[in-house]
Amino acid sequence: MGATCSLCFLLPVRLMIRIPFDEVEDQLAGVLRGLGFSEERARLCARLFAETTCDGVYSHGVNRFLRLVATVRNGSVDPAAEARMVAGFGAMERWDGQRGPGNLNAYAAMERAIALSREHGIGCVAMANTNHWMRGGTYGWQAADAGVIGICWTNTMPNVPPWGGTEPAIGNNPLVIAVPRANGPVVLDMAMSQFSYGALEGYRRRGELLPVEGGFDTDGKLTRDPGAIERSQRLLPVGYWKGSGLAVMLDLVAAMVSLGNTTHQIANDPLRETALSQVFVAIDPRMSGTPVNSERMEQIADEVVESLHRSRPVDQSKPARYPGEKTMQLRRENRKLGLPVDEAVWEQILNL
Amino acid sequence: MGATCSLCFLLPVRLMIRIPFDEVEDQLAGVLRGLGFSEERARLCARLFAETTCDGVYSHGVNRFLRLVATVRNGSVDPAAEARMVAGFGAMERWDGQRGPGNLNAYAAMERAIALSREHGIGCVAMANTNHWMRGGTYGWQAADAGVIGICWTNTMPNVPPWGGTEPAIGNNPLVIAVPRANGPVVLDMAMSQFSYGALEGYRRRGELLPVEGGFDTDGKLTRDPGAIERSQRLLPVGYWKGSGLAVMLDLVAAMVSLGNTTHQIANDPLRETALSQVFVAIDPRMSGTPVNSERMEQIADEVVESLHRSRPVDQSKPARYPGEKTMQLRRENRKLGLPVDEAVWEQILNL
Repeated sequence: MGATCSLCFLLPVRLMIRIPFDEVEDQLAGVLRGLGFSEERARLCARLFAETTCDGVYSHGVNRFLRLVATVRNGSVDPAAEARMVAGFGAMERWDGQRGPGNLNAYAAMERAIALSREHGIGCVAMANTNHWMRGGTYGWQAADAGVIGICWTNTMPNVPPWGGTEPAIGNNPLVIAVPRANGPVVLDMAMSQFSYGALEGYRRRGELLPVEGGFDTDGKLTRDPGAIERSQRLLPVGYWKGSGLAVMLDLVAAMVSLGNTTHQIANDPLRETALSQVFVAIDPRMSGTPVNSERMEQIADEVVESLHRSRPVDQSKPARYPGEKTMQLRRENRKLGLPVDEAVWEQILNL
Repeated sequence: MGATCSLCFLLPVRLMIRIPFDEVEDQLAGVLRGLGFSEERARLCARLFAETTCDGVYSHGVNRFLRLVATVRNGSVDPAAEARMVAGFGAMERWDGQRGPGNLNAYAAMERAIALSREHGIGCVAMANTNHWMRGGTYGWQAADAGVIGICWTNTMPNVPPWGGTEPAIGNNPLVIAVPRANGPVVLDMAMSQFSYGALEGYRRRGELLPVEGGFDTDGKLTRDPGAIERSQRLLPVGYWKGSGLAVMLDLVAAMVSLGNTTHQIANDPLRETALSQVFVAIDPRMSGTPVNSERMEQIADEVVESLHRSRPVDQSKPARYPGEKTMQLRRENRKLGLPVDEAVWEQILNL
């Protein structure tokens, strides 16, 4: 307790303390029960928050819990609402999230997609009318831990200008792709902006420039100055025109398949950002389930990881990494030392 | 004939001539029959090349035909080989491309994925052992024209360094996402490098800098100098570490689901680049097929397009565009005026 945390690269510089995993989970679950979550749902929701912090995604775990509380209190999130199937068609189902808690809805949708994939080889749940799923990687890990490939994405409120535009009109629409692997799944969890506002704030507070251009200043020039981008609200899409196009497509597919909202229909306010559209796909690549296939799959994942580690690095001490490579180490470390949590946030949680 | 083409932004400055669509298709089909393609397959393969040029993707259409011819002649592509199903599991099938012509294999795979989606809501064909599919957008348009959503990707030879690496070790693995729309489908076709080598060559020949950083020079500095990147062979992945991670995932999923090769197993030589792995997904979002759903879907696509056109542009004369927006116009223009083809390439084709 009380030790500062050097891990929180993406968070503003604040005093971080370490709290044991179980203590965090119990505390959050208690708050959620008080907000109207059932016992079982409070427990799962709290666990997902604690696991997110434990895996090192500090921006979307316990440090974001107060935002969930605020959105329950202002009515954006209905704590008792459960996602339900609206239409089913073999390997694919359309669900209504009924504005329930975003992480519980997403978890249920991926569970169903996994079950569909075991029956049909591939399964898909498209969900309208849901809420912020917090850490997208959660549902990728969920699929990989079940031995299947997981692909999912969400739309968001408009928070990035499209390429060629000056005002936020597309979402940063996180995309998650995960594959199972015995020595640790490979999990990509990427938003469509090069940096998040949380990351910009962190660089600004530390007085650092961004490592690469991250947006435009108010004169419309590309810049590495985080404060200039915060002022202009012009985040750069990943790969300029390319990420802008990808964000548009993810939004379109999510809305068309779920018959839900597109980004431009979602309130541009983190506390009123609701009724999102999401897609969850699971692929069970074992198909016929022969052991040979499973072995070959394992081998493929290991070979790709090894080929990355073998490739000549820019810095000899830093081999190229695979997506999610740091996660297992951080998870072990944080389980052992306690979860790093912003001290001010934790005090507010204790006082809820 | 003989008029220069101002459209070929992404091609080196060469003399372009215009040839009528049907003349191009007939000429290519004749060459393919001579190489051992059956009448029907020669016709389809030739049409896909002509359509690619007609849609304005000059780098991957007729101007690339000689590369197909060379790979048939050197044995990388077997003109008589047809892709076949190896294992089926409901909505998902595993295919072997048998090193047949890449565009014919991909077309057949997407046709099958579309059929599976009509039966199961979503359908997937994973194909190992296939060849370069030429223009990926072809199979997106194919799905959208059939009224379904299409998502597909391919791995490639190692042609981009991973983030943190100095030598090509990941593929530029094009990703295609397409949605149907009465007023013109929305189709994204993006590779994982910010620029292709063809684009770099074009900028260098015109004596221009790239509009944004496109790779590293031999000193490891990010640069807009196309020649410096050609010398270092260090193309920049889209969004730096993010596109590098996405390329790894697309490769992993394609290989694991098809039980095929990953990028590091593919020869780093355009004429020996073979036995690729690809994934084709189709989603029929109408599900129960009620007219209400189809109408709502149409509305969603139109609304997103309108929201982009409405957003405040950097340049008043250039509203933000949706992916594939220019295609319909180019298609009409090139159908009317003839297909713009590199004169030297066309002469070589006539002499085959």
